[in-house]
Amino acid sequence: MKAENRIQEAFGRAVRKARTVAGISQEELAARADLHRTYIGDIERGERNVSLLNMSKIAEALKVKFSLLVRQTEKNMSKAGASKKE
Amino acid sequence: MKAENRIQEAFGRAVRKARTVAGISQEELAARADLHRTYIGDIERGERNVSLLNMSKIAEALKVKFSLLVRQTEKNMSKAGASKKE
Repeated sequence: MKAENRIQEAFGRAVRKARTVAGISQEELAARADLHRTYIGDIERGERNVSLLNMSKIAEALKVKFSLLVRQTEKNMSKAGASKKE
Repeated sequence: MKAENRIQEAFGRAVRKARTVAGISQEELAARADLHRTYIGDIERGERNVSLLNMSKIAEALKVKFSLLVRQTEKNMSKAGASKKE
């Protein structure tokens, strides 16, 4: 997998996890963050190279710290790296 | 200040600080991250809405964790908020 896909996918999984924990739909997250629902879907599937501003809007809408989303992204990347070695 | 400028400036200051700690020039950082020197200058001045991929390239080039840059960004934002109250 290309490096850009790896981090995008890791970020997407972090968003999906935080959204699930928050118990809200993609639509609700999109509404709160003032973004489009399909854009949230794209992000969660790792298909978007999200900007600083949109990442911070998403974190705010999920009521988590931006740095927490990024830490989760790093964890997801190291997990992905680990599973590749198997 | 507009919210987008606040976070971009806070991120820019986090990058500048980490670069100074690393003891490298904007040119050296740009070369390591495979980005343009003027783009690094723009980022440090808070003039760019940097993408996930470029943030992660910059963190890697600075040999710091991406989440550390974001934590520093959050600290810079709360400092900026605090100084506004004065």
